[in-house]
Amino acid sequence: MADALDVDLPPFPFSPAFEPLRRRLIAFMREHVLPAEAAWTQQQAELTERGERWARMPAVLDELKAKAKAAGLWNLFLPNSEHFKHSHGLSNLDYAPLAEIMGHCFFASEVFNCSAPDTGNMEVLARYGSAAQRERWLRPLLEGEIRSAFLMTEPAVASSDATNIALEVRRVGDEYELNGVKWWSSGIMDPRCEVLIVMGRMAGGGGGDGKHGRHCMVVVPRRAAGVRVARSLTVFGYDDAPHGHGEVHLERVRVPLDAMLLGEGRGFEIAQGRLGPGRVHHCMRAIGLSERCLALLCERAASRTAFGTRLAQKGTVQATIAECRMEIDQARLLVLSAAHAMDAHGNKAARQAIAMIKVVAPRIGCLVADRAIQIHGGAGVSQDTFLAQAYAGLRTLRLADGPDEVHLGMVGKLELKRALTRAGKL
Amino acid sequence: MADALDVDLPPFPFSPAFEPLRRRLIAFMREHVLPAEAAWTQQQAELTERGERWARMPAVLDELKAKAKAAGLWNLFLPNSEHFKHSHGLSNLDYAPLAEIMGHCFFASEVFNCSAPDTGNMEVLARYGSAAQRERWLRPLLEGEIRSAFLMTEPAVASSDATNIALEVRRVGDEYELNGVKWWSSGIMDPRCEVLIVMGRMAGGGGGDGKHGRHCMVVVPRRAAGVRVARSLTVFGYDDAPHGHGEVHLERVRVPLDAMLLGEGRGFEIAQGRLGPGRVHHCMRAIGLSERCLALLCERAASRTAFGTRLAQKGTVQATIAECRMEIDQARLLVLSAAHAMDAHGNKAARQAIAMIKVVAPRIGCLVADRAIQIHGGAGVSQDTFLAQAYAGLRTLRLADGPDEVHLGMVGKLELKRALTRAGKL
Amino acid sequence: MADALDVDLPPFPFSPAFEPLRRRLIAFMREHVLPAEAAWTQQQAELTERGERWARMPAVLDELKAKAKAAGLWNLFLPNSEHFKHSHGLSNLDYAPLAEIMGHCFFASEVFNCSAPDTGNMEVLARYGSAAQRERWLRPLLEGEIRSAFLMTEPAVASSDATNIALEVRRVGDEYELNGVKWWSSGIMDPRCEVLIVMGRMAGGGGGDGKHGRHCMVVVPRRAAGVRVARSLTVFGYDDAPHGHGEVHLERVRVPLDAMLLGEGRGFEIAQGRLGPGRVHHCMRAIGLSERCLALLCERAASRTAFGTRLAQKGTVQATIAECRMEIDQARLLVLSAAHAMDAHGNKAARQAIAMIKVVAPRIGCLVADRAIQIHGGAGVSQDTFLAQAYAGLRTLRLADGPDEVHLGMVGKLELKRALTRAGKL
Amino acid sequence: MADALDVDLPPFPFSPAFEPLRRRLIAFMREHVLPAEAAWTQQQAELTERGERWARMPAVLDELKAKAKAAGLWNLFLPNSEHFKHSHGLSNLDYAPLAEIMGHCFFASEVFNCSAPDTGNMEVLARYGSAAQRERWLRPLLEGEIRSAFLMTEPAVASSDATNIALEVRRVGDEYELNGVKWWSSGIMDPRCEVLIVMGRMAGGGGGDGKHGRHCMVVVPRRAAGVRVARSLTVFGYDDAPHGHGEVHLERVRVPLDAMLLGEGRGFEIAQGRLGPGRVHHCMRAIGLSERCLALLCERAASRTAFGTRLAQKGTVQATIAECRMEIDQARLLVLSAAHAMDAHGNKAARQAIAMIKVVAPRIGCLVADRAIQIHGGAGVSQDTFLAQAYAGLRTLRLADGPDEVHLGMVGKLELKRALTRAGKL
Repeated sequence: MADALDVDLPPFPFSPAFEPLRRRLIAFMREHVLPAEAAWTQQQAELTERGERWARMPAVLDELKAKAKAAGLWNLFLPNSEHFKHSHGLSNLDYAPLAEIMGHCFFASEVFNCSAPDTGNMEVLARYGSAAQRERWLRPLLEGEIRSAFLMTEPAVASSDATNIALEVRRVGDEYELNGVKWWSSGIMDPRCEVLIVMGRMAGGGGGDGKHGRHCMVVVPRRAAGVRVARSLTVFGYDDAPHGHGEVHLERVRVPLDAMLLGEGRGFEIAQGRLGPGRVHHCMRAIGLSERCLALLCERAASRTAFGTRLAQKGTVQATIAECRMEIDQARLLVLSAAHAMDAHGNKAARQAIAMIKVVAPRIGCLVADRAIQIHGGAGVSQDTFLAQAYAGLRTLRLADGPDEVHLGMVGKLELKRALTRAGKL
Repeated sequence: MADALDVDLPPFPFSPAFEPLRRRLIAFMREHVLPAEAAWTQQQAELTERGERWARMPAVLDELKAKAKAAGLWNLFLPNSEHFKHSHGLSNLDYAPLAEIMGHCFFASEVFNCSAPDTGNMEVLARYGSAAQRERWLRPLLEGEIRSAFLMTEPAVASSDATNIALEVRRVGDEYELNGVKWWSSGIMDPRCEVLIVMGRMAGGGGGDGKHGRHCMVVVPRRAAGVRVARSLTVFGYDDAPHGHGEVHLERVRVPLDAMLLGEGRGFEIAQGRLGPGRVHHCMRAIGLSERCLALLCERAASRTAFGTRLAQKGTVQATIAECRMEIDQARLLVLSAAHAMDAHGNKAARQAIAMIKVVAPRIGCLVADRAIQIHGGAGVSQDTFLAQAYAGLRTLRLADGPDEVHLGMVGKLELKRALTRAGKL
Repeated sequence: MADALDVDLPPFPFSPAFEPLRRRLIAFMREHVLPAEAAWTQQQAELTERGERWARMPAVLDELKAKAKAAGLWNLFLPNSEHFKHSHGLSNLDYAPLAEIMGHCFFASEVFNCSAPDTGNMEVLARYGSAAQRERWLRPLLEGEIRSAFLMTEPAVASSDATNIALEVRRVGDEYELNGVKWWSSGIMDPRCEVLIVMGRMAGGGGGDGKHGRHCMVVVPRRAAGVRVARSLTVFGYDDAPHGHGEVHLERVRVPLDAMLLGEGRGFEIAQGRLGPGRVHHCMRAIGLSERCLALLCERAASRTAFGTRLAQKGTVQATIAECRMEIDQARLLVLSAAHAMDAHGNKAARQAIAMIKVVAPRIGCLVADRAIQIHGGAGVSQDTFLAQAYAGLRTLRLADGPDEVHLGMVGKLELKRALTRAGKL
Repeated sequence: MADALDVDLPPFPFSPAFEPLRRRLIAFMREHVLPAEAAWTQQQAELTERGERWARMPAVLDELKAKAKAAGLWNLFLPNSEHFKHSHGLSNLDYAPLAEIMGHCFFASEVFNCSAPDTGNMEVLARYGSAAQRERWLRPLLEGEIRSAFLMTEPAVASSDATNIALEVRRVGDEYELNGVKWWSSGIMDPRCEVLIVMGRMAGGGGGDGKHGRHCMVVVPRRAAGVRVARSLTVFGYDDAPHGHGEVHLERVRVPLDAMLLGEGRGFEIAQGRLGPGRVHHCMRAIGLSERCLALLCERAASRTAFGTRLAQKGTVQATIAECRMEIDQARLLVLSAAHAMDAHGNKAARQAIAMIKVVAPRIGCLVADRAIQIHGGAGVSQDTFLAQAYAGLRTLRLADGPDEVHLGMVGKLELKRALTRAGKL
């Protein structure tokens, strides 16, 4: 098969279950997922034609999900914890290369019920949700029957500093009332989306201290009165239908008291917990996407001739390819290393590593996709390859979940702290 | 007015007519064009809603064109030549800052009847067209009544090496027959497009010698039998309607003998002539667009606060802004310098300069737009600013009219030639 | 001649005297200076051998100076002012290309009595010195009989923020006493160095207000009691003998009251005045040096073969050369543009431009020199070419007279101010 | 201790002996080597003063060597092979972090008898040398009693393509005669250097086929008649005494027939064998050096204040530090991964990885050192820190053992081969 799914992995201590699972995942991708891309595109075009662009998913998706479930390739991301009896027991390190494999295809994560933001939302519901919430939302999420959204970013403030988040959550009698505007609520346009986890700030300051003690996370049904998707946001011209990215207005949305997760003022506590794994997932998918871009670049370079030689024989093209390979291999090593650090020492100890991968993986993804575009000429920016859309997604990843600048600042500060501690100056 | 139209120009020898014209153009942009952007967007959305996305132009465009014509801001690009009695008599150097000004708004060039590919096509028709062709096509083009397309690039070959171009032009009795596939034929989707200039290769080898003597350029009516627009190409996710970029199939298209411009085998001769000015136009528009991105970046940085300080007060943001300013100012100087070299020494003597600007201006445009996106966060990639679309256009400009690699190779070779000639080694 | 002295200049408004002078300077460089490089190196080696590395200049220097003076190529830098009757009357713009020409050879500036820090010191003495000081120091400096040093930077503080400068100047009766340590006092090792201009801070706070009102500049004889050169500093291993860079200890150095230039607390006022022209000189010399590096790169690339092709035929090498040419041409345009802005609008209005060139020119100089080193292989880092020493000098220029970071911050701040003023937000 | 010797290593399969040895090496570095740097510098200065700059090593070196030998920290690099009974049995992966540790100090490798080119020469002698050669040269090399040089690069040809190497080896009766010029023969200036391994080309074409079958390697005593060190080469301004880099003229040098290693025409076979481990060593030392530069950068940033804040508190500085950390961590992972690939699959299978590290490690080393210089201001380029010398060495490493361009070409070609094989197109 002409794909780049089966990469050489560095000698990290994967668990015994890992390699067989990886082989099965690769086989499934080759047998079922990659060959279905054309059908997915075709069906989406037909839905668009019929005015149902946002009304339903291409049918092939459900077929693939059923096959993946039957094959036991389901919920692979689930951590090994008391909360998840169905976990495959994979460590962050184990799961990372599987996420890379899924990253080769835009819809593959969903085939295996491993897509954002559901993965993070499931973890949050499992840890902090009531039994009723778990039954109502977590169970069908785990089954892939419904989907969810995570409402964090807001258009009116610099959300790179999450303490700016201002959607108001106010206790009103036996309920909380939510008022505010969110955007980049990915997946909320999906017709199957049924539950939202909303980050807000307690009116009056919340129970906690300081800037990080005023926020909270609340579970809100998608169909609750007052929840309105105002519009779909585009990413470099792509609307990413039917998943989509919504701007959501919450006006006097009322939820019962148990919708408050963990407690008033503890929003950042929850946010921290979901960050690490989510970033590893994003980054490894970015690496998978980069591998695919590079494979495409190489094949194109070998197929075209200009000024008397194949592009592949030109020194400039070879050097370009070399830069891609060096960047991808280094980025993968860094992400795997971070995943292992999370497994071995916990997310907090690994936070410099986690911040680093969030900068590195999307950055090199953009570089690789951009170079592949360049080699493809006009085809690269058009709909004839997935490259331009890949670039758009990777570029957006430099902003999503914190812009590069925030992560670089954190990496720098932690490095300084280490250096000065070592030197006895701190 | 909060725009960056009125930049400080370096002390180049502009002609006396230049500065008054520039001032009038800026005033017109401020009074009429920039305020009409919202209407344009709104009208295009309504046309889309009514299923007329490709059927007509937003009405505001014609209003603006009429005003511009009345104001004498029309066909500003026209060179001072025997062919154009209506020329404003501007040199390449004079016109360059005007193109920059137009670059601030996506549709401004057309308002002043200065948009690609019409400008180049008009020059070609004026120089090489018969009286009948000039009357049929050039006159209405000069009046802004019709539009045109230039069919060069082909999907099946590396068009970066234009000698690869393979659309077949065959003499059949008293006609030429054209067969082949073109793409990235910008403007051909425009309902007003009536005439095409097509680059092809003579069946049997043409009249000329060597790789550059086999091609030709032919004038083809848009409505000629056998001309079929197969589909619209997207740039990242934008279809750039109603202008658009078409894939065009030419099947047994017949044209009379006088459709052949200049002569069989002389296609490259014509192509060379249109390159220089076109590149200056593209590059200056890219610089104008960059100025607008930078202005937006600065205003955004001043309006948002993260981690206790305005973005504008952060050293990283200031350094980012500084890089933009340094790049834009240098690029503008380089393009103006190239434009002057064309005026003073001719396009051939200026070809190293022309190749350089084609690399530099789109490159720094991408960098500036990308940084502006980054500062805007999610708004930057969305439809809420013009930044993502600006990036898409600037990125494509790194491919259009020859990819960077080709120009870099030419710049390098010419430099080597100069160095070795100087050293007596050549 | 195989040099790159005679570059194409942009059509800027040079004065009539300029071009003839430029031609004479190029001719002199070709006839006298460049051919003397070997002798300079040889004589310096002999002096080193004899233990006189720091004791005298290579004899060829004095010969060249005499010839330059006789040819009327002397003190070219002198601004057209009441202070300088011997001025050639050149504008900053006029002088800039002459500085570029001198930049091709390490010692050329001195041949024409145009080298730093003498140029700046002469201007300061002319403007602010007493008649006695002018007679004692300025006259022989103008004649090239003595040399001078400028003592600014200090090892104990971040001198990038010049308000940190801490050398104490204290009024003691009818004298000032100076105590402190300076370094990077370039030229102080030169046996002909006779006068120092010293930046210090008034004990007790000085006459002025705020951070910029406490410093002063004082004229100090090199042979004054208490002035001690503690050691020679190296630049990437080079000691730059016999010019050299000294660490200077001033211990209870006493000078008369009229040694105070302009007045207590007015040091920054003087410093500002010397910045603009000095930066143009430095930057243009850096560009000249870059041109020479590029010429060498090209000749080397044409002379060596690897893997079956000349280096000059490799696409990677051609692209490298193209980057150099694009960078150099843009940098030159930017510096000339800044020089013209100084002439036309004054140093203050031109301060963004001046800050930009200080970043751009040394930066691209480093890039060009580094690429030339790379193409030369081992020869590039060795004494067999001037490339490594050129790199060392250019790299140091990114620090001298303010590190890049400070200039970038200023460029960014001024840009923000302009954008916000325009937008009515400031 | 304020050093950065004890880094977090990724969970790669180091052998059991590794970690205890690493701990002992770190302890020895802290107790003995780093504290001796001042003495080394001081003693070298005294030797220079006495005119013995090239005559002997600083005495502290022998003391340290004796201590290291006594501590069993000797010849750590020796592979686990039949040839070396004294091997510590370390894999390439095991040895790599030890090389990083040694990289923190310029002379540390020699303290542990692990310095280039002796390590490679010892391997070559062990594998291909006769019993007599092993007794005469290998034994004292293993004991650290003598040193050696490797004569490969030549000034007259582009040695980046090693087939260009032209020193002539001619069979003359029962001897070989060598004629030619070599340079960058590092270590040949060392007074203890006694044996040379010389790469040459067989007169008449050698026994082998094609471009890679004409060369050979010959063992030549340093004191053989006709071996003359013509001069010392400098690296930037450093002569690296007393180790040094020589230009060596071989004129009618005669050696017996058994001086020919492995056989006529088999020079490249030998060269290939020594490449892999040598590159891992170089790269890991570069990483160690980078860690030290970064540590210094951090400490400096924390100690200086400009414009009202510590450098360490500026966002630009934090971002700079973050880039360093990301680059170093990624480079280390890549080199360790390559070392493991060599262990697991052999040098040939690992050749893409080996080529990648040769580009990546010196490159990021240069970047890190350069940034550390920038933060240090003038101190950074001077003799007051090791930064400028570190930069010079790291920069040279981008040329030594093949310039970046050659490795990038190889990485690109191997990637293309893999992609096309996968796609069934090769």
